[in-house]
Amino acid sequence: MKEFELIRSVFAPLAQAPGALGLTDDGALVDVPLGKQLVLTKDLMISGVHFRSDDPPADIAAKLLRVNLSDLAAMGAHPIGYLLGLALPASLYEDWVMAFACGLTADQKKFGISLFGGDVTAGSTEAVLSLTAFGLADHGATLRRSTASAGDLVFVTGTVGDAALGLAALTGEIPPDDDLIARYRRPEPPVALGARLAGHASACIDISDGLLADLGHICTESGVGAQLERARIPLSAAAESVLQVEADRYETILAGGDDYQLLFTAPPSRENRIKRIGDELGIQITCIGVVNKSEGVTVLDEAGQPISVTKAGYDHFER
Amino acid sequence: MKEFELIRSVFAPLAQAPGALGLTDDGALVDVPLGKQLVLTKDLMISGVHFRSDDPPADIAAKLLRVNLSDLAAMGAHPIGYLLGLALPASLYEDWVMAFACGLTADQKKFGISLFGGDVTAGSTEAVLSLTAFGLADHGATLRRSTASAGDLVFVTGTVGDAALGLAALTGEIPPDDDLIARYRRPEPPVALGARLAGHASACIDISDGLLADLGHICTESGVGAQLERARIPLSAAAESVLQVEADRYETILAGGDDYQLLFTAPPSRENRIKRIGDELGIQITCIGVVNKSEGVTVLDEAGQPISVTKAGYDHFER
Repeated sequence: MKEFELIRSVFAPLAQAPGALGLTDDGALVDVPLGKQLVLTKDLMISGVHFRSDDPPADIAAKLLRVNLSDLAAMGAHPIGYLLGLALPASLYEDWVMAFACGLTADQKKFGISLFGGDVTAGSTEAVLSLTAFGLADHGATLRRSTASAGDLVFVTGTVGDAALGLAALTGEIPPDDDLIARYRRPEPPVALGARLAGHASACIDISDGLLADLGHICTESGVGAQLERARIPLSAAAESVLQVEADRYETILAGGDDYQLLFTAPPSRENRIKRIGDELGIQITCIGVVNKSEGVTVLDEAGQPISVTKAGYDHFER
Repeated sequence: MKEFELIRSVFAPLAQAPGALGLTDDGALVDVPLGKQLVLTKDLMISGVHFRSDDPPADIAAKLLRVNLSDLAAMGAHPIGYLLGLALPASLYEDWVMAFACGLTADQKKFGISLFGGDVTAGSTEAVLSLTAFGLADHGATLRRSTASAGDLVFVTGTVGDAALGLAALTGEIPPDDDLIARYRRPEPPVALGARLAGHASACIDISDGLLADLGHICTESGVGAQLERARIPLSAAAESVLQVEADRYETILAGGDDYQLLFTAPPSRENRIKRIGDELGIQITCIGVVNKSEGVTVLDEAGQPISVTKAGYDHFER
């Protein structure tokens, strides 16, 4: 199959929005209604770095899409569509691409979005996948990292650390666990929550670098500190089981990345309203600490003593 | 330098638009004024496929940006900004990235655009560079490929084939020529022309796959054919010199890609207006043929005989 045939047969069916122009043109068209603002984000993934080359292609597609939808949610935006850039080795041609496209199809339905355009090309040594997602937010109502205040509460969605434990399970550091591996391969960001938090949350980020590192980003940008209570940090049953055998793995939970849950702050007066929104959407939201006037993030153990954490979060350029 | 420091010190200074939020957040904000439509495009480049690994980093940056601005121009849009995705091998770290950013800085000034966001990560075998550019067009006035009609004239900007000859010069197929090599490494798309053609051109594309292949895209999407006269196809002095020694290289000119000039159609009644716009902007615009009711693209030689061309244009998946 040639490049143009591939686009026509595999990707054009994903370009359902009128503005995608059936992928026949040099660009795509997006209308932004009055009173709305466009939010754009772009994340890329490298085979062997952000996913394992033998991960199922549909999972890789879902992860690529969801890490970007997670960013839109963190900005308080409702997703509309995406542009896709695939640099592929010849070995991944056709069967891999079709399985990858199946993953996109399923997630387009799940999240109500469309492919709008992009680029696919062969010739790289490993797969490098790039995605630009865009969505709409009410004008001036987007969520930021720099707007947390001392006295705000700190909230997190879902459970923390599962993706990092899933990677540890895949690499044999801990025993295999399907639930944890699924969380690493196919994150479940609370995409619908983002736009609903506008007007309630004071600051927001998604957990990609790790709970402590990402809360650190909010603190740095907002000029505040934060204190978390370890006992309140929500863990999955699978993560609890790992900790019963290896208590040291708690560091993986605090510092590991790839969860793609939302981490946000809000004044205490908003707590009940936020819990109700979570209940409505079926999204678990847990208060795990407070914003204060100190510097950095501390975590207190059950005795009220600060826990020391050595690994601050993942950095691709650190070696 | 760590990933976050790299973003802060090298890329944040490029994020001059307020909506880029200084690259501190998960996404960027874009306002679209009433009556305007956002146009989005995304092209990626792989080291060793779309550029040579020893090309100057500033040239690579300019090419990456310009191939995307060329797509916006082909849609009739005025460029606003871009998101950048860099997957880099460890060997290209820091010095290479800074030289690359210098190329972006120069082109941001040249085209009046800003960086809005993106992603930079190490760990790929070769550099894979992805860019999403966006711009604005009057609502409903974007240029398309599917709207050419029999009787329209075919126009092209600048000169054709220089980039493909430049690549041939770099690979030693023809003698070295600085002008041609510069055209391959640093295309000069007529970015300002795109938005000015709205309302005058009937269909438009940029030459990335090659003159014949790209005119073929317009013909296929519009359900028409086209006839070009070889004598009217504009060539640079450098290309003329190559042809004097190797007449067969004409095929490279017709089928080679990477020129990033605009190729468009317009009714004969618009010819004078289009020429005046070209004169105003200092952009050479040449009428090279006509759209007809046949199928495909034919090129007539000086005796009025069709030229046979074997290579139809570049396809990354063809082997």
